[in-house]
This record gives sequence, structure tokens and C-alpha cells, in this order.
Amino acid sequence: MQCNSKSKGGKFRPYCIFRTMHFRLPALDLLDRLDFIEKCNRAVMEIAEKCVGITAIVGSPTLNNQPEGKKLFNSALVLSEGRIIFTANKSLLPTYDIFDEYRYFEPENTFSVFHFMGKRIALTVCEDLWDEQPFDNEFEKTRLYTLSPMEELARQDPDLIINISASPFSYTKTEAKADIFRSKALKYKIPVITVNQTGANTELIFDGASLIVNQHGEICYQLPFFEEDIQTFSLEDIISGNLMKESARPGAIPLIHKALVTGVRDYFSKTGLKSAIIGLSGGIDSAICLCLAAEALGNENVRALLMPSRYSSGHSVTDAVDLANNLKVHFDLISIEKPFSAFEEELATLFKGRERDVTEENIQARVRATLLMAVSNKFGCILLNTSNKSEAAVGYGTLYGDMAGGLSVIGDVYKTDIYRLAEYINHQKEIIPANIIKKEPSAELRPDQLDSDSLPEYSILDSILYQYIELQKPADRIIREGSDRDTVNRVIRMINFNEYKRYQAPPVLRISSKAFGAGRRMPLVARY
Amino acid sequence: MQCNSKSKGGKFRPYCIFRTMHFRLPALDLLDRLDFIEKCNRAVMEIAEKCVGITAIVGSPTLNNQPEGKKLFNSALVLSEGRIIFTANKSLLPTYDIFDEYRYFEPENTFSVFHFMGKRIALTVCEDLWDEQPFDNEFEKTRLYTLSPMEELARQDPDLIINISASPFSYTKTEAKADIFRSKALKYKIPVITVNQTGANTELIFDGASLIVNQHGEICYQLPFFEEDIQTFSLEDIISGNLMKESARPGAIPLIHKALVTGVRDYFSKTGLKSAIIGLSGGIDSAICLCLAAEALGNENVRALLMPSRYSSGHSVTDAVDLANNLKVHFDLISIEKPFSAFEEELATLFKGRERDVTEENIQARVRATLLMAVSNKFGCILLNTSNKSEAAVGYGTLYGDMAGGLSVIGDVYKTDIYRLAEYINHQKEIIPANIIKKEPSAELRPDQLDSDSLPEYSILDSILYQYIELQKPADRIIREGSDRDTVNRVIRMINFNEYKRYQAPPVLRISSKAFGAGRRMPLVARY
Repeated sequence: MQCNSKSKGGKFRPYCIFRTMHFRLPALDLLDRLDFIEKCNRAVMEIAEKCVGITAIVGSPTLNNQPEGKKLFNSALVLSEGRIIFTANKSLLPTYDIFDEYRYFEPENTFSVFHFMGKRIALTVCEDLWDEQPFDNEFEKTRLYTLSPMEELARQDPDLIINISASPFSYTKTEAKADIFRSKALKYKIPVITVNQTGANTELIFDGASLIVNQHGEICYQLPFFEEDIQTFSLEDIISGNLMKESARPGAIPLIHKALVTGVRDYFSKTGLKSAIIGLSGGIDSAICLCLAAEALGNENVRALLMPSRYSSGHSVTDAVDLANNLKVHFDLISIEKPFSAFEEELATLFKGRERDVTEENIQARVRATLLMAVSNKFGCILLNTSNKSEAAVGYGTLYGDMAGGLSVIGDVYKTDIYRLAEYINHQKEIIPANIIKKEPSAELRPDQLDSDSLPEYSILDSILYQYIELQKPADRIIREGSDRDTVNRVIRMINFNEYKRYQAPPVLRISSKAFGAGRRMPLVARY
Repeated sequence: MQCNSKSKGGKFRPYCIFRTMHFRLPALDLLDRLDFIEKCNRAVMEIAEKCVGITAIVGSPTLNNQPEGKKLFNSALVLSEGRIIFTANKSLLPTYDIFDEYRYFEPENTFSVFHFMGKRIALTVCEDLWDEQPFDNEFEKTRLYTLSPMEELARQDPDLIINISASPFSYTKTEAKADIFRSKALKYKIPVITVNQTGANTELIFDGASLIVNQHGEICYQLPFFEEDIQTFSLEDIISGNLMKESARPGAIPLIHKALVTGVRDYFSKTGLKSAIIGLSGGIDSAICLCLAAEALGNENVRALLMPSRYSSGHSVTDAVDLANNLKVHFDLISIEKPFSAFEEELATLFKGRERDVTEENIQARVRATLLMAVSNKFGCILLNTSNKSEAAVGYGTLYGDMAGGLSVIGDVYKTDIYRLAEYINHQKEIIPANIIKKEPSAELRPDQLDSDSLPEYSILDSILYQYIELQKPADRIIREGSDRDTVNRVIRMINFNEYKRYQAPPVLRISSKAFGAGRRMPLVARY
């Protein structure tokens, strides 16, 4: 993420550059390595060398030279003519959900505006402008910090706020984010220019959508979601109101769709990988994943493997074939019958006299994972995991079976939203065969099995999950607010019991305010 | 962890209680749930009700009632006669390695001693006494904080320091920990009584070994490592020096052994599980794990599965059988040949014209995992993972294969230390057959395969791994200090490349200052 300001013909002209390719945030524990910090600093100086006749703002870790405190600052650096001409260190260090900034950085406690071509600029890094923010979990304080950097900077009478950030996407937060910038512009009666990173890094997807807000708190301009872009604006235009341009914000489902496509695309491009494999069951989850992967990587870089069993319904294979054909994706078909039978035979003596149970269902899922990983190994394609958030939450999946994969594509999407995504994908023409959308969800691991044998209806399940996971409401409040007591208690027991499974799940593309993975750290052995 | 102080016949008599069972730390994101905090507070008040004629100190999260800042404090509470009579909130919040305290807690910035029976007690929580500490990574500052709580408390002229802590074991840190308490006693010329939690929670193992240090910085008494214990001491005895008792500190290998046994035992007891299964290959890693599990859970609660293949050497089965017999552990033998052949047949068409490669090796490992998990599912026993730290570091293992399991027993133990553990286990009589210890390490996944075909000698490998992982030295420094350039670069490439595998590994019992898992957070898509 960069924000540049450029002088041309004596006019003060701030403009913004959005570049995903060269940014791989967060750096995590690479920040514990002095050699990595030295590399960052060399990269900064390389950029500074290129800043001839132009001034650029870049973010970088910098060394804290004091004998006490954390070893680094999280800094915005102003670069010009080969030099760092101003440094603004971050004060408010988000250390919640996926953020671990206090792990590495010392909080700054002195503040000054940056004087540039006769203007006083309040240069802030991300959270420093977010001293008041709404959390989905009501237990979290809106004022999470005892300091307000912008309040400190305001004493120096700035003309303009520039905020550089790497703020990941959450489909419930797009409006709230814009409001934060609008409220600061209104409060201090000065424009806010904010640049946000775009592109994905493993599970985190940054939505770009950078904003220019005028001194009346009106959004003058918003750059697109999930895309790099360059635009040039003059400060005069921003202040005078010449810039006003209404741009409709896309709805949640189109944004989630674009986020997931970005997530898959960048995972591959940033790891240098090209092709993916998906196990196609004939169900809606793998269908959605295949659509997203084909859009992200190109249909020629995605292959599907159909692995019917003795329990697969007749339509499973035909539906899957129809979808692969619609997307022009190569597919192979391998029955799991022989390896499954071989396992059953080998285990027959040991299991003698015992009932068939979940063991045999898990064997089938693990045979499929073994086949998928074999093709992945042999052809060098990455297995994409197709579990959804509802399943992952209640542990309705097999570890080392259908929970396998290098990246979980829809692991942060509830089943009810999976149907909305299917509708969106099909909105112009039928890509996902109607039968895939209409059929009752089933794992097809025993005769006539349906998800509803083991789980509440998905609309009920998802409502409880959202309240417990995203909103972090206690069970008794979810019940008081209208959900069935037994169902709530059963669902919460399932969520808690299955932490051990999720511990070993692949990274999950994050689109909500609370995804499974690094942003949700639960003990495995607590009985709660 | 608790520290009690007791008044009897007018004498001030501090004593310490170590109880693992009721403590399940860290609570992690349960701290984000108001209902969990309310439960903690109810538990504290229950303890307070029992404090009749006795005063107890317990640790608990408490609500921060200020409108700004984090929602909680990390507190030491003094309980007496049904009430909380004093609260000391923690100021220094470790947020490095496995610690995430600033994720939940507001740092305290006011300090006062606790007046009790004519004495002034400096009551501190763990890190508050650790404002100066040595890190294995030299890049970390020794003075990680800009504040010294004990320096603040010293202005109030305390008679005694009490420190309650939950400080996990690291085999390189036992001496350094004791030194911290000794140096504080010496600096302020008052005794230090410190109680440390014992017992394990998933990956974290707390070593107890609580200390009483007199005002001359001498250790008067040390409670045992990894055991609950209760001892009563009078303050007069501590001050007068009557207490002096030399206790030899055990060496690193016996401590690691006891730590791992504790880790296995408590994982099972705290999850309510009883029995374990281990895949026994005839190699040293699974042998060590079987010994540890049998000691932790009792031989009757552990079962072994031997799964030879066409590539297994003759002695693999006989060595494994000898070990199981030595330990009186039940074992079954299932050949992987049939399922492996079934996979090969099913994949033959798709793989036609392609060379055999790592794909076929991985299939064997995954067939074994599927068999182990089938027995685990059918009999309700937990699969223990047997990968060592050297393998995990360089990715010498199969995801969903030999990397499977509910808990990694030796995933923080380098291969060279595995041999030391074997020697220690055999020090009184031969439990692990000598042949298991003597044979060349091999995965036995292709004819005549040896670990040394793919990896440097383990003594060389482990030295590089330790410098890169624990000490976090840059590659060029490891080379400059005597390691071969190509080997160092190759090893580091392997470590970095395999982050994606470790992401999905089971929790690892932590015995070092830098274990894989929650304490080491590396990006998956960075190319570094």
C-alpha cells in the first residue's frame, strides 16, 4: 500500500497508487528476524532512490533505537530524492482477531504533523485513525485504546489527513469502515485521503476500495474493491467539492464472490503455483469452489476428480459432469470402491463383532483425500478444500479426508450464503446445474444419508453459529432471543468439541469478522 | 497456580499450593467471552467463601471498568473471609512466542504494595518481575518494556516479593528463570516467593519448580519439577536462613522426559480421554513415543499398530514386536499391501507413462494414517503423532500421512536429542531394543531408502536448525560461524518451503524456547 503526493507546476497534487504484487502482509514472525528487517530497509531505500521529483509514502517496519521496549516501529515513511524525509510511527497496535502488532512493535507516543509544500499533513497508519470503532462482539470496547493519535495531531492544526492501511475485508464492515473516515473528516473539518492494500495473502484478503473524503464528511471518490488502481487528484479539487462522484457500493454477495476469487488467485500467484485440483461430489460446496477456482485461475488450470462410491446417488456423477462441462474444466473419474474394500478387508479381523459406524464413513473420505493428494503430488496441482463454515463449525467433516487441502476456499462462508453465491454465479446463465442447487445436502457416506439427519436445518444452524462465533453471544442470550434451547446447547457443544479438528484444517479465506484460523484462538482441552 | 499465606498463632506463615487439575491455561479467546469471565469471577468468589481463617492469592481475569482500553486485567487477587481484599493487576503483558496477553488485557500503570499482618508485600504477576530477561533470539531486547513494576513497588519499601506465574517449560531456560528471581531478591534485599503452575495444557507444559529465594539471593527451597506439591514455610525461617536446602536441579534430558510424560498424561486427563494408539514402525521415533505414552497413560491404555509394506526391512517388525513386548503394550499387525495396491491400480490409467516418485511414497504413509485413524475411530483411542522436530522442520513427512495425530509427542525434540532420550529411557535396563537405536534412520517407503539420501547427517542438520529456529540467526551468520554454505541454504529453503505442511500439523508438546505451532507464526506465501 502506498500513497504518493506529487508536485506538478507548483500545484499540490496528492495521488494514490495501489499495488498488490509487491506486498505480502502480514509478515508475521519474519519481523523477529533482523535479516528480514534489513531487507525491508534496503527495499525502502531503493524506492527512495527512485523518488526523483516525486514524494512517496510507504509503510515499513523500522528499528526502535531506544534501549527499552519492542525492537520495531510500524512506520509510514515519506520518501523523497533518495532520503526518508519524515517518519510517522504507529501508536495504536491492533492486537485482536488476526492482528498481532504488539507482538513486534513499540507503540509511538509522540505525534507531529508533516510539513510539505506549505501544508500540514496528519500522516497516520491504519488503526491510528480508528481509536473509536465498532466490534461485532459487544463485549469489546469501542474505545479500545486510552490514546487518540488524531486528537493529538489535531492540536497542530493539520490541513489534511492521510491514512495508509492494510485492512482486511469483512463483508459486514464495508460501511463501518467508510464511516470511520467520514467521522474523522467531519470532526476535524479537513479532508481524509486513505489508501488500503488490495489483494490476498494466504487467508487474508484486502479489499482496497480506498476513499477520498472531503471536509464535509462526504465521500468524493472510492477506488474499486479488490483491484489495483491509480488515480490522480488535486487537493484543490477535493476541497472545492469538484470531485464529488457517487459510486454505488456493491452488495455483500458480489463482494464475497470477488473476495474469494481474489483469495484463490493470489494464493497461487504469490506461491508461484499454477494449477488446482478439486474433488467434485455433485454437491453445492464443491460446485461453488470449482466455479471460483476456474474464474481465479482459468478453466485450463483447474482439474476435477469425481470419486463415486457404493453410496453415491445416480445424479451425483451426472451433475458433477454437467458442471465440469459447463466450466470446460478437465475431469477424471475414479471409483473409491477398490481401496475402500481393501481397507474393510484388512480391518475385518480387528473390527469383528463391532457395528459399522462413523469409522467406515471416515475411511471413504480418507480414500478420497488420498486419491486427490496422489493426483496433486503427481501433477503438481494444489488440492483446494471445499468445506463450508457451517460444517467446519460443527465438525461435520473428516480430518485427513474432506478436510484436506492447501487452502480452504469457502471455509468462512455459511451454508445459507453458499446458496446465495450459487444464485449470484448463475444470475446471467445457468453455470451450476439447477439440480445441484435443489438437492438435499448429503455427505453420501451411508445409504440415504442426509445432512439433516445429523444437523439442524441450515437456516437455524447458521443463525446460531453467527450469534455464537461472530457476535460471541452467550448461549442463554441466544436462547432468550428466540432460538430453541436444546438446539443451541447442542450446536455450541459441537462447536467447542471440534476445536481439535479445526486446529489441523487448512488456512481459510477470510471474509467475515471472525473466521476460523489465526483470528480465533481457542483452547483444545478446555471443557467449557 | 495459587500462592497462599496463612496466619497461625499470630505467626506470619506463607505457604504455597500447586494444583494443576483446576487450571487450564491459557484460556485464549475464551477471554473474549463475557460469559467465561463471569464464570471465572464466580469461581473466584467460591474460593473466597472457603477462605475462612486463611488468606489466599489466586490469579484470574477481572473486568476493566474504565470506558477506554482493553476489557480485562490479568489480576492476582487476595481472598479472605469471602471477599477480595486486594487486587494487583499485571502491567507487563508478554506478547511474543506463545504469549498473546495484550490481545485481552489492559496493562496496569499504578502500583501499590499489599499490607498484610504488619508486612508490606509486593504482589506481582509473572512477567511483572521479568522486566529484564534473556531471549534466545539476540534481536529481542533484554529490556522489552519501558516500565519496571518492581522498581515502582520498591519505592513503597516492601518486606517481601510474591510472584504468581504460569511460565511454561523450556529446557534452555531453567537456570535463567531462577536467576531472574535471585537477581530481584539481591537487588531489593528482600525474599522472593514464587509459585509457578505445573501440568500441561495441550502443547504447553508448565514445570512448577517454584522457588523461595532469601534476601541474599540464595535459593532456600525449590519444589519439584512437573509435580503438584504443598509446603509450608514461616517467613522468619526464610529471613533467618534456617530454610537453606540444596536441591540438585535435574539435567536437560531427564527434564525433557518428564515434561513429555506430563504433556501426554495431561492432554488425556484434561480432555477426558483414556487411551492412545501409535503406529510402530520399528524406528526410534515411534519407539520413544510408545515409551512415553506407556509411562503417561499406563501400558494397558496404549495400543500399537504395526503396518509393514513391501519395502519394510525384516527387522522392522521384529524390533517393534520386541519393544511392544518389553512394554507389555497390545499390538496388532496389518499389512498395507492390499490398500496400497488398490490405490496403485485405480490410479494406473491416470498415471500411465509417468515415473514413480514421492507420490507413491505418500500413498503408503496415507494408507497407514487411514488404518490408524480407523482403529482410533472404532476403539475411541487417540492417535499420537511420532514426528520429531528435525523432520517437521524440513518437511520430511507426509501431510495426512505420518504427520497425522491428535498430539505431536516429540515434535519439539530434535533427532539428536531423540537418541539421548532413548539412552535415558534405557539407562537402567534395555526397554528400547538396541537394534532400534543402532539402525540407520529410514522411512522405508522405497527400496533401500535412508534418511541420509535426502537430508544432511542429523548432527549437522540439528545444529543448523537450532541456530535458525531457536536463535533466529541469519543464514550468513550461521555460515560464517562454521557451517557449510550449500547445506545451510538448502536446509533453510526446506524449512521455509514447508510452512504449509506445519500449518496443518497437530499441536506439538513444547519443551524448547521456540517450538512449531502457536509460538512461531510464519507466513505461508512469502518467498523469503
